[in-house]
Amino acid sequence: MPKDPDPRIVTANDFFYRGLHLPSNTSNPYRAGLKVAGIPDLNGQGLTLARLDFRPNGFFPPHYHPRAAEILTVLEGSLEVGFVTSYPNYKHYPKVLNKGDVFVIPVGLVHYQRGVGRVNTVVLSALNSQNPGIVEVAAGIFGAKPVIDSNYLANAFRLNKGIVERLQSKRWS
Amino acid sequence: MPKDPDPRIVTANDFFYRGLHLPSNTSNPYRAGLKVAGIPDLNGQGLTLARLDFRPNGFFPPHYHPRAAEILTVLEGSLEVGFVTSYPNYKHYPKVLNKGDVFVIPVGLVHYQRGVGRVNTVVLSALNSQNPGIVEVAAGIFGAKPVIDSNYLANAFRLNKGIVERLQSKRWS
Amino acid sequence: MPKDPDPRIVTANDFFYRGLHLPSNTSNPYRAGLKVAGIPDLNGQGLTLARLDFRPNGFFPPHYHPRAAEILTVLEGSLEVGFVTSYPNYKHYPKVLNKGDVFVIPVGLVHYQRGVGRVNTVVLSALNSQNPGIVEVAAGIFGAKPVIDSNYLANAFRLNKGIVERLQSKRWS
Amino acid sequence: MPKDPDPRIVTANDFFYRGLHLPSNTSNPYRAGLKVAGIPDLNGQGLTLARLDFRPNGFFPPHYHPRAAEILTVLEGSLEVGFVTSYPNYKHYPKVLNKGDVFVIPVGLVHYQRGVGRVNTVVLSALNSQNPGIVEVAAGIFGAKPVIDSNYLANAFRLNKGIVERLQSKRWS
Amino acid sequence: MPKDPDPRIVTANDFFYRGLHLPSNTSNPYRAGLKVAGIPDLNGQGLTLARLDFRPNGFFPPHYHPRAAEILTVLEGSLEVGFVTSYPNYKHYPKVLNKGDVFVIPVGLVHYQRGVGRVNTVVLSALNSQNPGIVEVAAGIFGAKPVIDSNYLANAFRLNKGIVERLQSKRWS
Amino acid sequence: MPKDPDPRIVTANDFFYRGLHLPSNTSNPYRAGLKVAGIPDLNGQGLTLARLDFRPNGFFPPHYHPRAAEILTVLEGSLEVGFVTSYPNYKHYPKVLNKGDVFVIPVGLVHYQRGVGRVNTVVLSALNSQNPGIVEVAAGIFGAKPVIDSNYLANAFRLNKGIVERLQSKRWS
Repeated sequence: MPKDPDPRIVTANDFFYRGLHLPSNTSNPYRAGLKVAGIPDLNGQGLTLARLDFRPNGFFPPHYHPRAAEILTVLEGSLEVGFVTSYPNYKHYPKVLNKGDVFVIPVGLVHYQRGVGRVNTVVLSALNSQNPGIVEVAAGIFGAKPVIDSNYLANAFRLNKGIVERLQSKRWS
Repeated sequence: MPKDPDPRIVTANDFFYRGLHLPSNTSNPYRAGLKVAGIPDLNGQGLTLARLDFRPNGFFPPHYHPRAAEILTVLEGSLEVGFVTSYPNYKHYPKVLNKGDVFVIPVGLVHYQRGVGRVNTVVLSALNSQNPGIVEVAAGIFGAKPVIDSNYLANAFRLNKGIVERLQSKRWS
Repeated sequence: MPKDPDPRIVTANDFFYRGLHLPSNTSNPYRAGLKVAGIPDLNGQGLTLARLDFRPNGFFPPHYHPRAAEILTVLEGSLEVGFVTSYPNYKHYPKVLNKGDVFVIPVGLVHYQRGVGRVNTVVLSALNSQNPGIVEVAAGIFGAKPVIDSNYLANAFRLNKGIVERLQSKRWS
Repeated sequence: MPKDPDPRIVTANDFFYRGLHLPSNTSNPYRAGLKVAGIPDLNGQGLTLARLDFRPNGFFPPHYHPRAAEILTVLEGSLEVGFVTSYPNYKHYPKVLNKGDVFVIPVGLVHYQRGVGRVNTVVLSALNSQNPGIVEVAAGIFGAKPVIDSNYLANAFRLNKGIVERLQSKRWS
Repeated sequence: MPKDPDPRIVTANDFFYRGLHLPSNTSNPYRAGLKVAGIPDLNGQGLTLARLDFRPNGFFPPHYHPRAAEILTVLEGSLEVGFVTSYPNYKHYPKVLNKGDVFVIPVGLVHYQRGVGRVNTVVLSALNSQNPGIVEVAAGIFGAKPVIDSNYLANAFRLNKGIVERLQSKRWS
Repeated sequence: MPKDPDPRIVTANDFFYRGLHLPSNTSNPYRAGLKVAGIPDLNGQGLTLARLDFRPNGFFPPHYHPRAAEILTVLEGSLEVGFVTSYPNYKHYPKVLNKGDVFVIPVGLVHYQRGVGRVNTVVLSALNSQNPGIVEVAAGIFGAKPVIDSNYLANAFRLNKGIVERLQSKRWS
């Protein structure tokens, strides 16, 4: 139940975050970065805001948010985005977004984002929970600690066990 | 209850809107404009996205959203924003936001936005309902149709009746 | 999640309030008063009950409840009530209620109440939240502390700045 | 999701009910009556209002509302009210209410009401659902159609079968 | 709002319960027993699981869950189950379930279960709340502490007062 | 808002399903099957029930339910189950369940199930939504239609493109 903020201890800075105009760190293998607006008094407000940065061909691997829908707005560059529906259709809805384009991703569905232009891509993302959660599918499977049995994963992903174990030996997060 | 989109009739365009990079119309007395991303299949997603534009000193009059909290991100320029809590404190939380600043406004509280720099201000606004509603306080009071009794409003706003009737004779929306 | 009350520490008095038959204090400029049933164990029950009193021509200024719908029952006298919908229609639904009349006001919409008979008016009000909140529109705007910029308000309300500053100098709550 | 009423087809009468000042019919074996405010556009508002009337010693048999909490206000007379918590405590919270007293009953718990003074008792009841439902415990058991097996009920209620069958032969609603 | 479990202090045993294959205790007047899976970290998950055991002709008396719907699966034997809708219809929906049959009971409605075969009956019950509550109708009425006035109950249940007082003198939970 | 079923058109069979004692079809590459209790009037009840069958070493690949938590009960055999939390911990909570063991999986988290004994394993699964959805991670990624770009998936999963395209050429659902 939302309440008014307590006037004795709360200031406007409790609803405020500075710095979303600055790029997040894209010096990583994905050449993509994420920066969440760390608003102190976000609890109970039902919203999260983040900035996504993509160098050319930078990407976020397939992931989903277990507790939120997401709406994306491209501020600069071009973004390929897509989501996949659930069993049994697994229909893939892909779209290339340019500056000013907006796209919504239903709660809990796997999606991906990829910078597809020659310049950096900047995206604002809003989610309707203050605790949306992120599960990167590959990291959640192959980077789980302790490891999930490699025979099992080899069967489930139809890969040979050596490949699975090589994946599991990588650093995922 | 959200469901997967129906794969037989739905395409990626149903989750898509084009044009939020283009300014909204600010040729009005407020010198401010609003543009909602008209995504066809937004029903049930629990999110709305809008672009706000302010010429220097352009503003939105005090208003609130009866069914959503709001999170603002300044893309260009400078924005003064503030909200006021409810009875009996009516505490005012004002903040000047610059490029990259983010601010959250709790559900149902009166707030305002004003372009305070020398250049145009561009803001992205996300709300956690597909049907947030907008009530501009003055328009909702003085622009109500049929009119609310002017003696009553004069008393309530501690204005003289002539002023109230002049306000009521204006065009508010 | 509601639970049964804890039988070790709770008594029937935790669900009880005495005194709603006694008028609230109407010796104020509005000639209207409000009394909330202060039930100790109301948290989580999703209900609030209040008594409203109006001397002839007494009134509550336009206000709304950011977190509840309201249902009114006239016990004595006559009440003019009305609410206004949101942008862009701002349609005004007024109604004069007499003894035994009931009226419902949707969540978050501005409404007003006024005693319109020659005798005192008594109203019971039930709201579907234990924390509905009240925002009196004029007090929330002109009585905000610290004050909202008077130039801004003059523009927004289409009043001259002197009138706004006179309003701001009054005592609103 | 609540929305503003549609201004083209809706009038103030859609939020209005006339007649709660008139007693409900108490010419029945319980010497008690109930009258629900039949507001046309109550759907989605999350509220129900009713008037309860009790002649001296009139009563409502034990019942509960499967989908709402209830708040009672005594307008005239005296009411004995009580609710019972759930397994395993079944603690009984009784209270005699006089004019102006208010009592809240948590969602789904069995409760009863009885006029205990020498005059008629009038009560306003507000519930936080537009579809609260009523289950009178005895009527729901012994008045079920088709009948519940009488051997089973005899065992469950620790009554002899003849008594159960006599109960089942009565008219309960 | 569900969150991921805290990885520093939580182990898989916090999501685990052992022993639902063992019968619950049916050495009681009902010849029926109940065993709830006592999972330590169930809070916020929105689910409860229980095993029900019935000797031949064993039964649970009419009861309801004030905060959950229930879905039953017969694992062994045969179960008669039924629920009754609310005022004014009180329609009774009975069904005999055999091994592999599933039946759902809407939130808050009175229902009963009875072993109807020659062998023991075993049932799994899932409820969509971690705090569903149980109100056995007869125990909640006649076993309430302190007792509910016997004249009142005699009237409400159309029993003579002596029978009611005999019921009240029994041990119900 | 749940309501009582309509007594004119509804029968007990609308709340009923027959056949969960019969194994589901495990003649597939996973040697595991799934059978959902197809109750006609489940809409609005907030529950789903299913039977899971596993031949020795049969398994369900990693999957999640975007709109429900799940509670599992082992009826026969032995089941290895595990879930993985979200970014950045990806902690894996594995557990071997035997007959009578119960395990709960929080909403939206990836989990797996595998028959680990020498005999068939039978599991009952209850979910707290009538529309939980299933996303098998590998099928949702590699079986999406139209296909997701293989270069992208090769990067995201750190596999070479040939392997990804071989995966994409398989039949996943």
